[in-house]
Amino acid sequence: MIEDLLKNAGQPFFVGVAGDSGSGKTVFAAGIRTLLGEKLVKMMEMDGYHKETRTKRAVSGKLPLDPAANHLDRLVSDLSLLKKGQPIELPVYNHQTGEFDKPVAFSPSPVIVLEGLHALYPEILPFLDLTIYVDPCREIKWQWKFKRDKEIRGHEGVRLEQEMLVREAAYKRWIDFQKTDADIVIKIFPSILKQFARYQLVDELPEYTYKVEMMVRPPESLLPNLLMPLNIGDAFNISSPPFLLSSVPSLYWGRKVVNFHLDGIFSHDTLSSLEKQISDQTGISTYNDGEEYLLRNNSTRFAQLLIVWRLLSELKNKSGFKSQ
Amino acid sequence: MIEDLLKNAGQPFFVGVAGDSGSGKTVFAAGIRTLLGEKLVKMMEMDGYHKETRTKRAVSGKLPLDPAANHLDRLVSDLSLLKKGQPIELPVYNHQTGEFDKPVAFSPSPVIVLEGLHALYPEILPFLDLTIYVDPCREIKWQWKFKRDKEIRGHEGVRLEQEMLVREAAYKRWIDFQKTDADIVIKIFPSILKQFARYQLVDELPEYTYKVEMMVRPPESLLPNLLMPLNIGDAFNISSPPFLLSSVPSLYWGRKVVNFHLDGIFSHDTLSSLEKQISDQTGISTYNDGEEYLLRNNSTRFAQLLIVWRLLSELKNKSGFKSQ
Repeated sequence: MIEDLLKNAGQPFFVGVAGDSGSGKTVFAAGIRTLLGEKLVKMMEMDGYHKETRTKRAVSGKLPLDPAANHLDRLVSDLSLLKKGQPIELPVYNHQTGEFDKPVAFSPSPVIVLEGLHALYPEILPFLDLTIYVDPCREIKWQWKFKRDKEIRGHEGVRLEQEMLVREAAYKRWIDFQKTDADIVIKIFPSILKQFARYQLVDELPEYTYKVEMMVRPPESLLPNLLMPLNIGDAFNISSPPFLLSSVPSLYWGRKVVNFHLDGIFSHDTLSSLEKQISDQTGISTYNDGEEYLLRNNSTRFAQLLIVWRLLSELKNKSGFKSQ
Repeated sequence: MIEDLLKNAGQPFFVGVAGDSGSGKTVFAAGIRTLLGEKLVKMMEMDGYHKETRTKRAVSGKLPLDPAANHLDRLVSDLSLLKKGQPIELPVYNHQTGEFDKPVAFSPSPVIVLEGLHALYPEILPFLDLTIYVDPCREIKWQWKFKRDKEIRGHEGVRLEQEMLVREAAYKRWIDFQKTDADIVIKIFPSILKQFARYQLVDELPEYTYKVEMMVRPPESLLPNLLMPLNIGDAFNISSPPFLLSSVPSLYWGRKVVNFHLDGIFSHDTLSSLEKQISDQTGISTYNDGEEYLLRNNSTRFAQLLIVWRLLSELKNKSGFKSQ
């Protein structure tokens, strides 16, 4: 059972999740916690390692996107401690106030998901067992950021837009390149199913229908079959929702990946069956949470399942090496 | 069992397959015979109903695409006889010689597949229980026609090209419109998987990799589930061939259809499982033949399976009405 492997591993299995702020990192990180269980998985936010508060940044003009505006050195020594099984004091940045809250005690757990702008930076990579980069297209990133920052964090629209325009070049310079070597790159686009209708969709697509594209580095050892029971009989029914599924081995930034495309709505039965196969491997039954507008879209849920399957392969591989 | 339904139906179940000459009609018609069995299915070629031999056409300038160049009236009375369970003398056109061979005795069988340029013409439609239109894109039609006519029928390339250019407008005028009301329209394109690789395919696609698109009128009564076991685990392997599968309810020429997209290579296990579910319905085990360059492409085989599934639904529906 994977649960036992993890508990007996001796040191945490680190997953790094990088991407822009508001890119949906949290949703994919949360998928790991959902599918492996809260007892095994802890989330570790990197934002606490920012050097400056929002007020100070307004004066200095520095962006948190700049690695030099973050205590990456301190993060590295904290990761070293955690790797050795020792607890740390995790610094906490408060997105509402823009100030730092009191640090919290953080002790290692079998799986630690490190999430942040620079999670796949060269000095962090040696600690990570699996690396994920979340990369929604510009259109969707703006949509989400407006939604989150306005509704949840109470910024003002116009100021937000200016801020986002300023951030774009900095993002390209300091963040974007991390995808070139990630084990899993998750791209998110508006659905392309409209183009697959000849000549028009019968029903409008539900809001938040995305095409999720995943570039996955093939694992060194594969898990048993992951059978996806697609009911083609259902699809003959005109009221069944549209979907697209594709897998294409690709050359991506000079390396070989499998490029998955997931679009539209997959049936509850299909996804539940995938979930069941994962819990058969882990021995852990799942629950679900996460940002509603992403989870209502079930190609996101499908992507979460594939991430965890890939993670389990990596774990199997790692523990395989150990037992040699 | 579908086999019994068919045998006891009292009159033949007619499938019409229309499309240009060299469009692959035969392959999809043959798929029905393969999956329902030679004992139940007879093929009926419409070309024997041409009015003129090739020599005469060279003088008259008439094209076989022109419905007036065919004895559709005679076909109608032959279909009436067959429907009543009576045998006919089927006229035979010889594509090698361009002349007519001796007619052959043709007695009704439980399923008759009528195949030809005008198979879905208004006067034929009342006889048909299922209608199929085969519609490869221009590029592929030309590829196939050159291949078949040059290699198999010994025409000369240049003359063939001129002939094909002459035929195009006539095809649009007299043949193409039949698709607007077909139960199943099969479109064939070059594979689009190259566009789904980010940024390049690992391996070139095998020759004859097509995207098959099917516009299917939803059946009035559905068969039980048709479960397609896709092994997503396999896809994590970089050497697994690429595929794309999509289903999109669409508005097509003013009516509702399900638009299936099948591209690339589906595993033998997946297709065999579909085949098994079909033979569980029919009680008939299958064999395979057909034009090699189409069958090497397994999205074609997949399409054949979907056609037969749709046919079985229609049959169930028809017999359901009878028993009321």
